[in-house]
Amino acid sequence: KTAFICCCIFPVDMCDRPKNTDVRLRLPAVCFIWQTAMIILFGIFIRYDSESSPYWVEYKRDHNISSDAENDFYFRYPSFQDVHVMIFVGFGFLMTFLKRYSFGAVGFNFLIAAFGIQWALLMQGWFHSLDYSDGKIKIGVENLINADFCVASCLIAYGAVLGKVSPVQLMVLTLFGITLFAVEEYIILELLHARDAGGSMVIHTFGAYYGLSISWMLYRRNLDQSSRLQGSVYHSDVFAMIGTLFLWMFWPSFNSAIANHGDGQHRAAINTYLALASTVLTAMAISSLFQKHGKLDMVHIQNSTLAGGVAVGTAAEFMLMPYGSLIVGFCCGIISTMGYIYLSPFMEKHLKIQDTCGIHNLHAMPGVIGGIVGAITAAAATEPVYGSEGLIKTFGFEDHFEHRTPAEQGGYQAAGMCVALCFGIGGGIIVGCILRLPIWGDPADDNCFNDEVYWEVPEDEESSPQVLYYNSHMHNKDM
Amino acid sequence: KTAFICCCIFPVDMCDRPKNTDVRLRLPAVCFIWQTAMIILFGIFIRYDSESSPYWVEYKRDHNISSDAENDFYFRYPSFQDVHVMIFVGFGFLMTFLKRYSFGAVGFNFLIAAFGIQWALLMQGWFHSLDYSDGKIKIGVENLINADFCVASCLIAYGAVLGKVSPVQLMVLTLFGITLFAVEEYIILELLHARDAGGSMVIHTFGAYYGLSISWMLYRRNLDQSSRLQGSVYHSDVFAMIGTLFLWMFWPSFNSAIANHGDGQHRAAINTYLALASTVLTAMAISSLFQKHGKLDMVHIQNSTLAGGVAVGTAAEFMLMPYGSLIVGFCCGIISTMGYIYLSPFMEKHLKIQDTCGIHNLHAMPGVIGGIVGAITAAAATEPVYGSEGLIKTFGFEDHFEHRTPAEQGGYQAAGMCVALCFGIGGGIIVGCILRLPIWGDPADDNCFNDEVYWEVPEDEESSPQVLYYNSHMHNKDM
Amino acid sequence: KTAFICCCIFPVDMCDRPKNTDVRLRLPAVCFIWQTAMIILFGIFIRYDSESSPYWVEYKRDHNISSDAENDFYFRYPSFQDVHVMIFVGFGFLMTFLKRYSFGAVGFNFLIAAFGIQWALLMQGWFHSLDYSDGKIKIGVENLINADFCVASCLIAYGAVLGKVSPVQLMVLTLFGITLFAVEEYIILELLHARDAGGSMVIHTFGAYYGLSISWMLYRRNLDQSSRLQGSVYHSDVFAMIGTLFLWMFWPSFNSAIANHGDGQHRAAINTYLALASTVLTAMAISSLFQKHGKLDMVHIQNSTLAGGVAVGTAAEFMLMPYGSLIVGFCCGIISTMGYIYLSPFMEKHLKIQDTCGIHNLHAMPGVIGGIVGAITAAAATEPVYGSEGLIKTFGFEDHFEHRTPAEQGGYQAAGMCVALCFGIGGGIIVGCILRLPIWGDPADDNCFNDEVYWEVPEDEESSPQVLYYNSHMHNKDM
Repeated sequence: KTAFICCCIFPVDMCDRPKNTDVRLRLPAVCFIWQTAMIILFGIFIRYDSESSPYWVEYKRDHNISSDAENDFYFRYPSFQDVHVMIFVGFGFLMTFLKRYSFGAVGFNFLIAAFGIQWALLMQGWFHSLDYSDGKIKIGVENLINADFCVASCLIAYGAVLGKVSPVQLMVLTLFGITLFAVEEYIILELLHARDAGGSMVIHTFGAYYGLSISWMLYRRNLDQSSRLQGSVYHSDVFAMIGTLFLWMFWPSFNSAIANHGDGQHRAAINTYLALASTVLTAMAISSLFQKHGKLDMVHIQNSTLAGGVAVGTAAEFMLMPYGSLIVGFCCGIISTMGYIYLSPFMEKHLKIQDTCGIHNLHAMPGVIGGIVGAITAAAATEPVYGSEGLIKTFGFEDHFEHRTPAEQGGYQAAGMCVALCFGIGGGIIVGCILRLPIWGDPADDNCFNDEVYWEVPEDEESSPQVLYYNSHMHNKDM
Repeated sequence: KTAFICCCIFPVDMCDRPKNTDVRLRLPAVCFIWQTAMIILFGIFIRYDSESSPYWVEYKRDHNISSDAENDFYFRYPSFQDVHVMIFVGFGFLMTFLKRYSFGAVGFNFLIAAFGIQWALLMQGWFHSLDYSDGKIKIGVENLINADFCVASCLIAYGAVLGKVSPVQLMVLTLFGITLFAVEEYIILELLHARDAGGSMVIHTFGAYYGLSISWMLYRRNLDQSSRLQGSVYHSDVFAMIGTLFLWMFWPSFNSAIANHGDGQHRAAINTYLALASTVLTAMAISSLFQKHGKLDMVHIQNSTLAGGVAVGTAAEFMLMPYGSLIVGFCCGIISTMGYIYLSPFMEKHLKIQDTCGIHNLHAMPGVIGGIVGAITAAAATEPVYGSEGLIKTFGFEDHFEHRTPAEQGGYQAAGMCVALCFGIGGGIIVGCILRLPIWGDPADDNCFNDEVYWEVPEDEESSPQVLYYNSHMHNKDM
Repeated sequence: KTAFICCCIFPVDMCDRPKNTDVRLRLPAVCFIWQTAMIILFGIFIRYDSESSPYWVEYKRDHNISSDAENDFYFRYPSFQDVHVMIFVGFGFLMTFLKRYSFGAVGFNFLIAAFGIQWALLMQGWFHSLDYSDGKIKIGVENLINADFCVASCLIAYGAVLGKVSPVQLMVLTLFGITLFAVEEYIILELLHARDAGGSMVIHTFGAYYGLSISWMLYRRNLDQSSRLQGSVYHSDVFAMIGTLFLWMFWPSFNSAIANHGDGQHRAAINTYLALASTVLTAMAISSLFQKHGKLDMVHIQNSTLAGGVAVGTAAEFMLMPYGSLIVGFCCGIISTMGYIYLSPFMEKHLKIQDTCGIHNLHAMPGVIGGIVGAITAAAATEPVYGSEGLIKTFGFEDHFEHRTPAEQGGYQAAGMCVALCFGIGGGIIVGCILRLPIWGDPADDNCFNDEVYWEVPEDEESSPQVLYYNSHMHNKDM
């Protein structure tokens, strides 16, 4: 009994128990119970909003809307689809780089994202889209985008624990992650009225520290017993590039998806496009500079090239200016790649944080930078640059925020950053405790990063005499 | 002579003849003749419609259209591109799961889709877009989407016979499939005036039963001689997930692509998004529950997670309600996965239907469910829920359908379902007869699921003894 | 000294020197210097345009624009994202077909595209988007598309030298390529006032001859020493199909992305869709017809199926008519595939042009055909077909071009074609000279097409004793 409690609380591995990874009852039970709960809650709470209900014809007439083109669907649906691709293909394939964990990467990503978007529609709906006249949540395309955003934070967290947890643990991680996200987002966006179009703070900083804290709680002292599986093979690296590129290409849509109609979305897309372009060059440069013989490392190309998109998230719709976006990307490419080279090994060795995908370098640091850039850009906003109406529209200085100044806004942005950090770290530690319970079917230390634990894996043809010959030949050459 | 006729008519394998799979003359002949026919028919019949011709400037002025944004191109083009991705990457890669049939999967999918969309523009044009003033078919972006839809039914049918037919047979299958589709669609949508935004009936039910009937006609008693090739390898399963995910992500666009402008498209996208999310959880749950040690099976993840999208096709633009969509997805995930576990082996053994991709579980059953859901939802429609104008717009109770009631509409929806089934099964049996003719170059029973029959396959480094033996065997045969 | 100069000028391999492929200092230096230069130049020159600046609110009011939907962002952003996918995933993965150059294909494509779009924004901005009132370049979404287009020409050129150059050489190739492109484009589109919506001339013809000339200058007599790596393996061919399909599917967006709002974009998409469909059939037919046993060759399917999209580039927004598009596609499918079969070996043997990806067949010949088709279609334009206003709008017969006749326009189109050719060949020879300098770190003849030169390549499992141990271990467990 005591040992049981201990092993949940203390972040040291005192649970050297034999592992039972058979999730045959637990996984279906969790899926069925949670999906049933979703159906009931959706039945009680969720309805179509005025732009997606058949009353749109009347609504249009009543509000003097001349054209169906004014339906929010047409402003946001193309961006929504891009974001959707990022969530399912982008994150899913980015994590396929491990030689024998591609099924888990893309499959569990699929599972938790599909669950997460439903729970997110409810949680975010209660905070943002509740129609007080009838107590229902009214959803439209913007809610779908926000649900995808919300899930992104949990997928980021998944990156830290990739290969070391069971699908049941991931479902728990997602349930709590979405819940925490919705509260944190409400505090940052509604109470503090900070702006965060691309979610540097609410998505990336929160998600990354949430995942890192969980990984710290689930520290595995003997993880090197799985080291034979903790690398990539040639084709798994190419698969991962599919994820990288779809994330990279559609990031402008991510940062502009819920920005203001018109110039807001337009500017967010341009800023993100530029920051990402700049990041690619410095990430490649650092990768080559710090490697023996100047050879590029696919880990850096797959991840650090995306850091610029994270870091312009908050400021994407501000007047960051094109050169400002390039500078942000420039710095993040350097910092993120250096993080992979120096910081990740340090964290694993000294801080006991095992971060499979290096989310600290891709999401945590760039996310914090993004929050800071956002605060500075907001504080530096002036009427000549934005125009008086543009300033109000961009920062939402309306209703009971109409007397806020840009300098104050900068302060609130910084406060939002702190909230995201606290929720990420605090929430991660608590959820990590829960995930330490020996009931979730997680794999043993010598069986991590291995699809065979949770998947029927086909027997491969590969490994013919010819290949063996070829490989040994190569091997000799290397010596 | 008698044997020749027999072997076309009777669905038993009395044609144990040596096979000639050299399509060197037949495939080019079919391609050139049909493409030339397309050019001639397009020259006679196909013109730009008023929104894609340069007279748009005048048309806009004459119809008091204030903005280019009212051009249908901007309402539908993003959805069109998503559908296009589903047809070529989605269906193509979904079928790459076999260890040695990826070229055939993605390549023949490409071939028949490219032919099919041309023939579909003509066939559907004659029925739907003929301008009686000059006898020309006027095409715009909606026709392109419909052509893609039409082709989808043939690609579904391809799933049943994957690996067992020659490209020439596939071209024949497509020619007749498109033709039957256009007639069936005309009866269902125009004569019966059933609604079917996402094509649960006209696309999925028809396509699946068309393919299953053909597969029944082409039953191969000795298919187990190819069993060494009838499985996946690790990387081919990951490739197939590319197809799965692009289908899954873009299905909301599929179901909303030709829905009504405004709330119709908006609601169809939301319903599909929710149904698909729900399906993922129940498909994973059943997959784990019925497997030894609770290990997930990639076949289920690749296919059954999509069943919800099929099943909300018809009702996508109706007031299915968000929880209704979740329920549909919930049930379909269960039924589809159970189908893979129990029904597919049963059908192969007792009904002599060899269904390579399991389209019965992914398209046929969910398609029928979709038709039923559509009929019920339509019959249950009321004015308070839709609004009087919304009811008319959603169900098209206009012109000479203005006196139809929702209950009657439900009946016509059910009638449409039956038409789709009859065309699928009847058409499939007839076309199956034609495809049994021993002139199409189909592979022998011991050489199915093998790219080497129709493709120049690069020699891999990876070639296990099994494959080596097999290759030298092939080599000898070729000589 | 003399040898040094000689080896830069004469296209014969007199530089049998030992190669130093360590780019550890050169690549980072180039990246940092050029990225820093970009930041400075962006700081001086680049600003947001009126539709992406916060002054959009005022601009809208001043110009009586009633809705945010009129912002160019909504007309072009979906097409932009499709083009973006073509540049990074399309071109990147199309080149992954080599068995051991997938990292280089997709990685260097990523690097030079990310650099190129920045430099293109500047170069094209100076020529097209300079606001003379304040000397700033004002950018919006159309500039982003044009930058992607500009980069496409350099990626085409990369196809010719794939596997034979260092990343530093590619950066130089891109720097000069973008520069030449911008000048050439200015002459063709502004001075000659030729129309080229899809860039058959300015992008494809220029890019292809630029690349081929460079490849001619960098001729490697002993390239057959790398022949063991100059082929594909099964899975690399499937990866390449990802590139092919995304290029094929999104080509309608490519050709319509910067066409006129309304009917221009609409018609360009339809024409491209049809031309591409037609190409697939004839490419497959020729591939089968000229191969032993009628087996299809993946090289043709991967490349020649795209030729139709190249060839309707210029005429995409003209009244090419649907059957005209099919005819263009029909011919290009034949010509391009024949080119792979007969012309490429001839060029390598007799003209000393080593064209890794066969860009002569995919871009050069179809590009020239596209220019000719464009000239003929323009010259044949009449008022009854286009309408008087449509004719003016389609060909831009406004301002000081208002007296130009269609026949004259045809002549100018042809002149534009010649300009593209001259810039491509001339520029390529000059840049080829520069790239012959023995300072760029290019690989030796026996080490081409090899990722190990510039990348950390993971050791594959199919190999190490450890894995063998592991596999046999697993095997025993299963027993």
